[in-house]
Amino acid sequence: MIEHITWIGDPRKGHLRLLDQTKLPGETVNLDCTTVQDVWDAIKRLSVRGAPAIGIAAAYGCVIGVQKVQEMDAHATGSEGVRHALEVAATYLAKSRPTAVNLFWALDRMRRVEPCTPERLLEEARRIHEEDAAMCRKIGEYALGIMEGLRVGHPRAESGANGVGVLTHCNAGALATGGIGTATAGMYLAHERGLPLRVFADETRPLLQGARLTAWELGQAGIDVTLVCDSMAAQVMREGKVAMVIVGADRIAANGDAANKIGTYGVAIHAKHHGIPFYVAAPCSTFDLSLKTGGLIPIEERAAEEITLGFGKRTAPEAVKTYSPAFDVTPASLITAIITDKGVIEPVDEANVQRVVGG
Amino acid sequence: MIEHITWIGDPRKGHLRLLDQTKLPGETVNLDCTTVQDVWDAIKRLSVRGAPAIGIAAAYGCVIGVQKVQEMDAHATGSEGVRHALEVAATYLAKSRPTAVNLFWALDRMRRVEPCTPERLLEEARRIHEEDAAMCRKIGEYALGIMEGLRVGHPRAESGANGVGVLTHCNAGALATGGIGTATAGMYLAHERGLPLRVFADETRPLLQGARLTAWELGQAGIDVTLVCDSMAAQVMREGKVAMVIVGADRIAANGDAANKIGTYGVAIHAKHHGIPFYVAAPCSTFDLSLKTGGLIPIEERAAEEITLGFGKRTAPEAVKTYSPAFDVTPASLITAIITDKGVIEPVDEANVQRVVGG
Repeated sequence: MIEHITWIGDPRKGHLRLLDQTKLPGETVNLDCTTVQDVWDAIKRLSVRGAPAIGIAAAYGCVIGVQKVQEMDAHATGSEGVRHALEVAATYLAKSRPTAVNLFWALDRMRRVEPCTPERLLEEARRIHEEDAAMCRKIGEYALGIMEGLRVGHPRAESGANGVGVLTHCNAGALATGGIGTATAGMYLAHERGLPLRVFADETRPLLQGARLTAWELGQAGIDVTLVCDSMAAQVMREGKVAMVIVGADRIAANGDAANKIGTYGVAIHAKHHGIPFYVAAPCSTFDLSLKTGGLIPIEERAAEEITLGFGKRTAPEAVKTYSPAFDVTPASLITAIITDKGVIEPVDEANVQRVVGG
Repeated sequence: MIEHITWIGDPRKGHLRLLDQTKLPGETVNLDCTTVQDVWDAIKRLSVRGAPAIGIAAAYGCVIGVQKVQEMDAHATGSEGVRHALEVAATYLAKSRPTAVNLFWALDRMRRVEPCTPERLLEEARRIHEEDAAMCRKIGEYALGIMEGLRVGHPRAESGANGVGVLTHCNAGALATGGIGTATAGMYLAHERGLPLRVFADETRPLLQGARLTAWELGQAGIDVTLVCDSMAAQVMREGKVAMVIVGADRIAANGDAANKIGTYGVAIHAKHHGIPFYVAAPCSTFDLSLKTGGLIPIEERAAEEITLGFGKRTAPEAVKTYSPAFDVTPASLITAIITDKGVIEPVDEANVQRVVGG
């Protein structure tokens, strides 16, 4: 397992070590964050990304935020000074990625820590981290159950000599969480327990999270992974190489419509066309039950340069128009099941979402 | 219209000017070919690409091949020496792209020229070029008829403020032919005649022919073109921006199954899912009636580097496995019609293919 978010040292003198994801897959470089500013920069620059991972990093950032005050006033444990320093750090860190829901949630949890000492704050940050890891494993257990079922029940599952063929898009992996990822959780557990597995990773244009991150982290774990361009996924399915698709989600509506990285919707259509089950893996915190359907999820449009200059080299004419939606919404009707940390939602409809996630 | 293959000067002293497509879209650089070796290099290096364009360039290359002999023996018009020089040039040029069917066809036509003089050879090369241009226009007329019908009949057609939305994949454009392309032919004619049009060009990983070539040539012509990543096409369709898809083909079987650049099959599935008509535009010479179905078309697998190092920069882990089929086959059942220079095949089945293409 990749340890990409690590606290080094004791609560009062230690610091946060992050794997710098902007350098992957070329270099494995650690980033030692000794100030709140360092943590803020790391989140802003996407050195750490993925909603759960950002929340965890920010929680550790709060510990760093109170260290200076402690140094100055060794006997002021729990004093107003420390609480003030925490508030300053949390307010500042909240501005690093203003749309990241997990970030606010983690910072609020840190603000509620009593007594407000470096020791207690580090304990809480570690708890947030461990809870996330545990949640990933729960998702993984449910996903593994499905994989095992497919292995027995599905004729495609054995077609690859290397075991169950699983296709994924983008990175909802260990690098995005404090554990073994969401979409990847079942893959890690399958590998751990010797279930033969063959993963196909879409490169995921424009930002290539599949090529840069998913292919890298699965390769590090020794999982059999094959990289394909997004345009090749349909052909891979047609050739019978894939028994299931499993992806993550950024936000899921009350009816099960799921927003995820652009291209996910297209993969879901391909899966349906080939009769291949399509799974979304996400913790219950991803659901936004205030949204009745996915049509209410706003879709951010991204800069042209990610398409035209995405590889450090111009690959399109200077003044060309582009259209670059960051996400798409896969309707519940194309999703076989949603695998959460509290159980599997299948079939995907409002009642089943409410049963597993609500209340 | 882009003149990317041009003969400069008279038959005995002239030379071939090619637009160097490897430099697009960054630079518009001409390549002056004064020797057969120059033409061979241009084809080999993909400075000129697309089956019809390669055939035309090679035909002009044959003219260059006999110039030297003529210079040495000014009175030997049609002599054995000239015929020998032609044979040497043609045999050599045939090895530049050994799988290009149009190349062999064009060289054979040049070999049959009588009397074998530079003047007659240049005339024949020009004829091959003009016939190709005429064929493109014929395809364009049929395609335009379909576009006009969609404009009236299809609710999606008017949804884009800029006119009929057309999505294409890869480059079956002017740059691949001696005229206005195949998939693009209807677009050029629509633009010529004032039919409002909005083209979406898939960037077409791994080699980005859509971003580098299609977006460039349509932009040069003043056609409204928007570049998207391959993974965005389904979302563009879902938003109602596209009234039709039109692509080229590398080889079409007797039943209408069509091989084309990887990703085409996936686009066809997306079109079907959204109820958007999917057209293939190709000259009759693209049909291989000896193949009963598309399952018999061999699919070449390409090098990993095109995925992992496609932009001069490593975008995937060093040792990662890849799978990179160069083409896919779209089954006839997903093709609304095939637009040829001899008419429109619709519905696409063996009898209709035979009626339009056979005999």
